[in-house]
Amino acid sequence: MKNEILSKNELLEYWQAQRRLTRKVIEVFPEKDLFEFSIGGMRPFSQMCAEFIAIATPSLKSIVMNKSMKFDEKPTFKTKEELLKRWDEDTLAINELFVQIPESDFQKEFVLFGEYNFQIKQHIFYFIDNEIHHRGQAYVYLRALDIQPPFFWETL
Amino acid sequence: MKNEILSKNELLEYWQAQRRLTRKVIEVFPEKDLFEFSIGGMRPFSQMCAEFIAIATPSLKSIVMNKSMKFDEKPTFKTKEELLKRWDEDTLAINELFVQIPESDFQKEFVLFGEYNFQIKQHIFYFIDNEIHHRGQAYVYLRALDIQPPFFWETL
Repeated sequence: MKNEILSKNELLEYWQAQRRLTRKVIEVFPEKDLFEFSIGGMRPFSQMCAEFIAIATPSLKSIVMNKSMKFDEKPTFKTKEELLKRWDEDTLAINELFVQIPESDFQKEFVLFGEYNFQIKQHIFYFIDNEIHHRGQAYVYLRALDIQPPFFWETL
Repeated sequence: MKNEILSKNELLEYWQAQRRLTRKVIEVFPEKDLFEFSIGGMRPFSQMCAEFIAIATPSLKSIVMNKSMKFDEKPTFKTKEELLKRWDEDTLAINELFVQIPESDFQKEFVLFGEYNFQIKQHIFYFIDNEIHHRGQAYVYLRALDIQPPFFWETL
């Protein structure tokens, strides 16, 4: 038996499961509200999604290619359809890039976006936590819009 | 080198780090708003904290004692001070209980609260995700109240 709590594949599946739920949250937003609705001066959910996109594959590329990248969260999409298309492209890209990181490297430190120096696994957990955090905020937006969000455990 | 992404101690530290941030979010709420403020018919943050408390140590006790428990999220506190006191007691209790789960058991399935059948590690990740999710909602409450929440990365 391996002495492990979480394997590399399980970490990838954990991340992708959360991304599947985030996709459902994007889908349930009315187009206009996705890009405009906000509370308390916070960003609309589309901007938070632009952040997730700016983090996920650019980080993995940076790690796999061992090359520094600049953080750029300018949205790569103008519509919900374009966002969902990019989301699905990233799902595949994440799978392809993630497997290229050797298991032993997850303990190694890596400087992301020129300033964040953490172990690679810590980076990945931060990406997941950050997505859950902002998606939770999108749940409040949806409730305020009187829209039923997907169940939190619906990650299939 | 161990073939692992995350060790048992790292999982505990990951959870406690998130709990430290949640504690800061509780602290920054005005007493009245902690118990009364909500958006879109959602629960006030104190009720979400009552849920976290109803999950954390009762789950670990159930696992360690291999005994079924009923889920009861009735608040055990009436004030912010009582909530913070309970939070700190649970921090110690979680540390004490968690170490009693053998590392090899984290892969085993366990039925929590008479209905949720998952691997023990999946339960723990769910507790963490659930806390991040609802705490993210509390950030919207704070912003709507014009209160600056703690930085998301301030988990020390």
